[in-house]
Amino acid sequence: MDPTEVNVPDVKDMNIDNITQNTILINSQCESERVKYLFERLVTHLHDFARETRLSTQEWKAALDFLVTVGQISSDDRHEFILLSDILGLSLLVDAIDHPKPPSSTEGSVLGPFHSHKAEVVPSGSDISSDPKGRPCLVLCTIKDPSGAPIEGVKIDIWETDSSGHYDVQYAEHDRPDGRCVMTSDEEGRFWFNAIVPVSYPIPHDGPVGKLLKLLKRHPWRPAHMHFMFEKEGWDHLITALYIHPDPYLTSDAVFGVKDSLIESLGSVSAEQAKAYGVREGTALISRDFVLVSDDETQRLRDSNALAAMADLFPGKKIKLLDHLPVPDLD
Amino acid sequence: MDPTEVNVPDVKDMNIDNITQNTILINSQCESERVKYLFERLVTHLHDFARETRLSTQEWKAALDFLVTVGQISSDDRHEFILLSDILGLSLLVDAIDHPKPPSSTEGSVLGPFHSHKAEVVPSGSDISSDPKGRPCLVLCTIKDPSGAPIEGVKIDIWETDSSGHYDVQYAEHDRPDGRCVMTSDEEGRFWFNAIVPVSYPIPHDGPVGKLLKLLKRHPWRPAHMHFMFEKEGWDHLITALYIHPDPYLTSDAVFGVKDSLIESLGSVSAEQAKAYGVREGTALISRDFVLVSDDETQRLRDSNALAAMADLFPGKKIKLLDHLPVPDLD
Repeated sequence: MDPTEVNVPDVKDMNIDNITQNTILINSQCESERVKYLFERLVTHLHDFARETRLSTQEWKAALDFLVTVGQISSDDRHEFILLSDILGLSLLVDAIDHPKPPSSTEGSVLGPFHSHKAEVVPSGSDISSDPKGRPCLVLCTIKDPSGAPIEGVKIDIWETDSSGHYDVQYAEHDRPDGRCVMTSDEEGRFWFNAIVPVSYPIPHDGPVGKLLKLLKRHPWRPAHMHFMFEKEGWDHLITALYIHPDPYLTSDAVFGVKDSLIESLGSVSAEQAKAYGVREGTALISRDFVLVSDDETQRLRDSNALAAMADLFPGKKIKLLDHLPVPDLD
Repeated sequence: MDPTEVNVPDVKDMNIDNITQNTILINSQCESERVKYLFERLVTHLHDFARETRLSTQEWKAALDFLVTVGQISSDDRHEFILLSDILGLSLLVDAIDHPKPPSSTEGSVLGPFHSHKAEVVPSGSDISSDPKGRPCLVLCTIKDPSGAPIEGVKIDIWETDSSGHYDVQYAEHDRPDGRCVMTSDEEGRFWFNAIVPVSYPIPHDGPVGKLLKLLKRHPWRPAHMHFMFEKEGWDHLITALYIHPDPYLTSDAVFGVKDSLIESLGSVSAEQAKAYGVREGTALISRDFVLVSDDETQRLRDSNALAAMADLFPGKKIKLLDHLPVPDLD
């Protein structure tokens, strides 16, 4: 590359006071306004963090070594950086920003690192867990819009652990999906399946994130829950979970996912339900009516939230939305 | 773990506005005041970054996937997270904070990802490069204290690339250290060796950091330089480099390492020097007198800089130094 063709500001004699502005200047050669803004904020916060803590070389090196181990333990079935983001509250925050929910909608929760694209598509009424030690649980659900109209043809991802608190992908020898499936809502917005009663479990803490939790004197437990993800064109992608009451970890979830509106107590299958769904009377029961909102409604809410937040965070600064994401307005 | 034994604040119904304070509260169970402070600032900046950019789920996932690849390409001989820190200006900043230099001292520069602990200890006068294509260069140095007194017995790490711009560790088949060595200063503070004239080279850009530079429209080049690291008990650890003038990248170093005071023009070995050092007259010559400052002086400077910066950044907040690093003073 011919350096004379590169239009960069002269950078030399960098010090504590001028490095941030110059890094931002060099990065500002980037063509995307959004990427430029992301890196302006990233570099500012990264450098301010170092300045405010007087970060030592030893701490810096320990942090970078830690991040290497987070990357190296990650695999197709284990995303340790998502786990790290989860325990630092970032995952919950990003979901709250990107998928704002009007009061009529089911609230969102964290995706977690164990969603897999390998789940089988099955019809309603299927058994999604093969764990003989699990306590059987009938799950009866509907998906509706805020007006109460059923939504047909929604793709629903469902995943839960086995009775020992492990997802299928956590077993080295697992050969087929278990405790997870994909189903579709029918014309009345219904879907139902046989699962097992969710159990509390610790997030994987045999790796770097576990070490960090230990350093911070935090426990790695999540309260019992079942994950749900809803997708249909025109409707806001909903990632959520149902949490089972009672559970000792409902108020100290290691990844901050619990919301009051997502807590369910176990019911018991009635004689009539037993007949209708082919399970024993008295079987544990979870029933839930989910509410999706339209993409349009979410986008309007996201846009107005973004502009309000920007006005609040940067009073007087001109901001515009580009593909619904804020960037400085330089025109 | 019995959750009743864990003293955590109740955490439920987290949202954009309360997640930061609650994450900090949960982390504050940690016993180390310093770690607690580091994570308070880290979580604050991480969350503020997401709030100020309205970070989307897609961007968040792309960033976490990127960090996985940074970890996975790293090895004993390639620390891609250091490289990432380098191109974001963080490495330069941390060195400037942790190793402040009084005006009498040689300035510091970035360590870079290619220092290795496998270099051989050799006596002064050794050839450190076996590259037959390199242009021979005699390097004559001294190490003194600010008063001009020589410092004996300093361990000096020296490393440079070969004539093609690659360090030994970048070759898959390299079997012994080359272009690097460790030597010791003599009673007059001297050390000298035969090397090759440093060349400009691109930092490794075949991995994720290279992709990032491309996205940011930045070039990956560093101006020609030779690394030096000085260690002796009682003296501040000095990581620095000499940059060779002229070089097209002296004002656009990809990792922000260049300082005016570290730039050297190549000299030419005189007849007298040729005889004294056993090289040909006219051979390229780098000569440099390095100045180390004592640990005590650096520590005093670091402490006073830290307290001044804290007072400036957080007016009215009580801060104390713990092992010379700032933490909130809660007493």
